[in-house]
Amino acid sequence: MKPDCPLCRQDGGAVLWRGPRLRVVEVGDADYPGYTRVIWREHVAEMTDLDAAARAELMEAVWTVERVQREVLGPDKVNLASLGNMVPHLHWHVIPRWRGDRHFPDAIWAAAPPDRDPAARQERRQDIEARLEQYRRSLAQAL
Amino acid sequence: MKPDCPLCRQDGGAVLWRGPRLRVVEVGDADYPGYTRVIWREHVAEMTDLDAAARAELMEAVWTVERVQREVLGPDKVNLASLGNMVPHLHWHVIPRWRGDRHFPDAIWAAAPPDRDPAARQERRQDIEARLEQYRRSLAQAL
Repeated sequence: MKPDCPLCRQDGGAVLWRGPRLRVVEVGDADYPGYTRVIWREHVAEMTDLDAAARAELMEAVWTVERVQREVLGPDKVNLASLGNMVPHLHWHVIPRWRGDRHFPDAIWAAAPPDRDPAARQERRQDIEARLEQYRRSLAQAL
Repeated sequence: MKPDCPLCRQDGGAVLWRGPRLRVVEVGDADYPGYTRVIWREHVAEMTDLDAAARAELMEAVWTVERVQREVLGPDKVNLASLGNMVPHLHWHVIPRWRGDRHFPDAIWAAAPPDRDPAARQERRQDIEARLEQYRRSLAQAL
């Protein structure tokens, strides 16, 4: 554990599930309800710092999050990314995406275009948020 | 195969390796020498559309690309992403990143800040490009 690493010091979101080697947290991004991170417990930077069994365990959790997002939230696409340029502590972003969301079809890290239809976006957000409790329950069961 | 899908119709880059179920291509982005994509042959959108064996095969190729990038190119970080919002045909971005590159520490999809030190960037680019032949050779051997 590194004392100056935010993902060593803090959970990095609302914990949905915690196991001995990884945790799954809900990010709580207002533009991206359901946005979830899978965070490896140990402070390592890259997937190839892990052995094959650890990589498989981490990715199994990522696939489970993706599967439950698709089943419960019904996104148009799921985005997966392990970047870690700012926080080089291995974590995966699992982001349900919808046509017309804040950045679609761009990556969520792109500059956001002007919000042309905030009412429609708000309506979809409420629709997704209504399914979040079910998402959290199903995910905790599946992990 | 879908006739209107660019990754069904074209290789999507310079092919470094091709197997029966996936190919590995060099993107040729001037800002990101070594930027490589691993593209599944069949037209599917999400990792969880594949069975476990296919997922493992695809990710094994991604880890191999990451490992060879680290060994030969020596990046400060490797970024992995499967987005597919624009082209929903399963493909992984494997992007070697360096402190001071065009967007660091942001994702490469972020708006690029003004280029404050183009001379230093050009120097590093030449340094990386000098290792690309070795990267291509090592990758083809490892896959």
